Amino acid sequence: MKIPTRLYLSEDEISISWYNIRSYMKDKPEPMLHPGTLQPITVADLSLIFCDESIKQELDDTSPLITIPKDLQTFYRAYRPAPLIRAYFLEKELGTPAEIYYKFEGTNTSGSHKLNSAAAQAFYAKAQGLNSLTTETGAGQWGSAMAMACAYYKLSLTVYMVRSSSEQKPYRKTLIETYGANLVPSPSSTTEAGRKILIEAPNTSGSLGCAISEAVEAAVRTESCRYVLGSVMNHVLLHQSIIGMEVKAAFDKYNVKPDIIIGCAGGGSNLGGLIAPFMGDKIRRKNDIRFVAVEPASCPSFTRGRFAYDFGDTAKTTPLIKMYTLGSDFIPSPNHAGGLRYHGMNPTLSKLYHDGYLEARAEIQSDVFDAAVRFAKVEGILPAPESSHAIKVAIDEALECKRTGDKKVILFGLTGTGYFDMSAYAAHNAKTMSDYVPTDADLAKGFASLPNIPQNR
Amino acid sequence: MKIPTRLYLSEDEISISWYNIRSYMKDKPEPMLHPGTLQPITVADLSLIFCDESIKQELDDTSPLITIPKDLQTFYRAYRPAPLIRAYFLEKELGTPAEIYYKFEGTNTSGSHKLNSAAAQAFYAKAQGLNSLTTETGAGQWGSAMAMACAYYKLSLTVYMVRSSSEQKPYRKTLIETYGANLVPSPSSTTEAGRKILIEAPNTSGSLGCAISEAVEAAVRTESCRYVLGSVMNHVLLHQSIIGMEVKAAFDKYNVKPDIIIGCAGGGSNLGGLIAPFMGDKIRRKNDIRFVAVEPASCPSFTRGRFAYDFGDTAKTTPLIKMYTLGSDFIPSPNHAGGLRYHGMNPTLSKLYHDGYLEARAEIQSDVFDAAVRFAKVEGILPAPESSHAIKVAIDEALECKRTGDKKVILFGLTGTGYFDMSAYAAHNAKTMSDYVPTDADLAKGFASLPNIPQNR
Repeated sequence: MKIPTRLYLSEDEISISWYNIRSYMKDKPEPMLHPGTLQPITVADLSLIFCDESIKQELDDTSPLITIPKDLQTFYRAYRPAPLIRAYFLEKELGTPAEIYYKFEGTNTSGSHKLNSAAAQAFYAKAQGLNSLTTETGAGQWGSAMAMACAYYKLSLTVYMVRSSSEQKPYRKTLIETYGANLVPSPSSTTEAGRKILIEAPNTSGSLGCAISEAVEAAVRTESCRYVLGSVMNHVLLHQSIIGMEVKAAFDKYNVKPDIIIGCAGGGSNLGGLIAPFMGDKIRRKNDIRFVAVEPASCPSFTRGRFAYDFGDTAKTTPLIKMYTLGSDFIPSPNHAGGLRYHGMNPTLSKLYHDGYLEARAEIQSDVFDAAVRFAKVEGILPAPESSHAIKVAIDEALECKRTGDKKVILFGLTGTGYFDMSAYAAHNAKTMSDYVPTDADLAKGFASLPNIPQNR
Repeated sequence: MKIPTRLYLSEDEISISWYNIRSYMKDKPEPMLHPGTLQPITVADLSLIFCDESIKQELDDTSPLITIPKDLQTFYRAYRPAPLIRAYFLEKELGTPAEIYYKFEGTNTSGSHKLNSAAAQAFYAKAQGLNSLTTETGAGQWGSAMAMACAYYKLSLTVYMVRSSSEQKPYRKTLIETYGANLVPSPSSTTEAGRKILIEAPNTSGSLGCAISEAVEAAVRTESCRYVLGSVMNHVLLHQSIIGMEVKAAFDKYNVKPDIIIGCAGGGSNLGGLIAPFMGDKIRRKNDIRFVAVEPASCPSFTRGRFAYDFGDTAKTTPLIKMYTLGSDFIPSPNHAGGLRYHGMNPTLSKLYHDGYLEARAEIQSDVFDAAVRFAKVEGILPAPESSHAIKVAIDEALECKRTGDKKVILFGLTGTGYFDMSAYAAHNAKTMSDYVPTDADLAKGFASLPNIPQNR
């Protein structure tokens, strides 16, 4: 069968379930710990912070499939299935015998895959009878997605946006506000956490860690309000598994068998969602696919981090998570474009990497943008900087096939578009892009912030 | 049959022909005239400016269907079929018994329908053995689309971008440059026309008319170079008919019969493409669809213009075109957001409007943005300001159905996304948007610039 440029699925072929990788793992990820008692976290510990259903999903490592609520299935159909595209033009440009496919999550207005989990979390909040949510945003994709989801479900939303980001990306701010969300540059005087930081450092440009602290504080102090998060957590990966389920359905329909699946990795939500059903099969020895996580060389959690219990935020208030981490004090270069700046990594992906199911590579920023422009010129889509990490490795693998003559089937996740990252493209065009890579001394500073607790339980 | 949210077409169902409305018109649009001789324009008159195939198509008012070249069909499949979406969420929000559909042309990186003609014109230039093209851009959508098309066909491109626009929209500039085009803020010192204006008005912010003059001059002086234009011309409408052909195929497949088709209109390329096959049927009395052109109240060519021979540019160098026009000296308010600023209108659409086949409405800017935000919050897509003119009228028609109980079927063209128009959304959010409407005296100034020639030949 000749594969079309776009591998169609009808709405009836979209999965009505999410896929829970953990259910298939013999060695499960270790549980989150309460930072005070060092005991596994309970529903009660989390219920003032997160929505009930998110907590239930976060702690569920046995259910293989979790049904997507009907109303949410309807919402998904407004922008899904996301295009799965055979990169014929890129293959020709590279002269490779490999087949290249990409799953493109950037056709919705939030510009990325983040909407898959934003919609789910907004739906559950509404179903629980809440009327408002808080969150934080750095690069702005998650804030945009939550603003869209809350507009649809008629929930009030406050987004704590890292101050430097809200100033550098005024258009992201406008987008979030256009969808009716209340945007607060962080640190702000609206929370204890914010006021404390403003007294200590009045001119601070803010950080994701501080924005998280403000958003959590604001959620906890209001009865009908909860906090939502866009990556790292297992329930977020679960929602993102809709990506992989669609790819699997389309590949089965067109009889395509991938050899390599590549995804960019910051907190891991896109990668975890993309690979979910394929990884479940690999764990059960039903395939022999290579899975590759691609991270920025400036924030190399997998490739240079430690597998240890660590805090999720710089303020050290979250539960402890066993993950690959650079230490919660690690700060990536401010010249690093886009997201993928997080110091840690989702615990399920961390465990899979630790156990050898997943590979990882770190890429330099200029190389990533070179790949982005090469891709954009032939495939027509201007990719997000984050997504371009996956493009870089997909091109490398395709060129390796050209050298060896192998006809491998390569899939990568194209998580979003770069419309709100044009200043980074301008820097790349002007050849003023930074290629900072942390020294061992830089990393040592981050590792020094790891909590001093027994790491092997 | 239950209509899905997205009315699918497979690649094999995409039209392999463009649809030439003029072939079905008993009363054809009047020919373009040479401004010196006042005789109908010939192939020879245009061949130094435009590509040969574009000229052929421009002058062809008899072929009903024109085959899309194979290679271009392949390019189209990288981003087409464009989604045709049933606006279930908007219908519910409005509480209307009407069915609302929209054809969404914003999923490609140029962000609009402009790529349909940009790709065609680049293909023909390449096939003719040319190696470079010139064009102008105002709002930036056309320049982005041509940059993408020329990157794909490996043609050199120079874009003369209205200086004020290149300064207000630095990200559009970056996008165009990222695709490898040479961007020149206009007026520039690279052409006679530019130098003349810079001497007369060194601090001018530029105009589309001046940018056209520079682009044409630059094309004419180089043997292997031609000029390309993104709207107004009949060959551009022809290329855009791929939009209507896809809608027609999908509507036929799902047995949907539209009662009203609505499109925004600046130079008319989107509207003309959207309605093409439906209008051809209406002319032959095969349907009784209402066609509605929506223009900004600040630049009301149809609703307040004159049907007269006029120049296409402010420098008065182009052939004379019989069209609805405000006069080539008419300048819309600088506070007008987005495109749709052109003083004239495609001659075929002008003739159809004159003969009663097409209605027109003019809308105020704030009303248009209110409709845009209302749409964005439920349908999830942040529309371009241009497209939002059509949304405004679609909502009005749906609310009229709510009043009368009519179950009409409404289709509108969603030409693109608003990612590069966030400053306009910010102004709307801050309620500082201008709602300028020209006075009769403003219009009289424009009409005074109409050429003094016999108007009825």
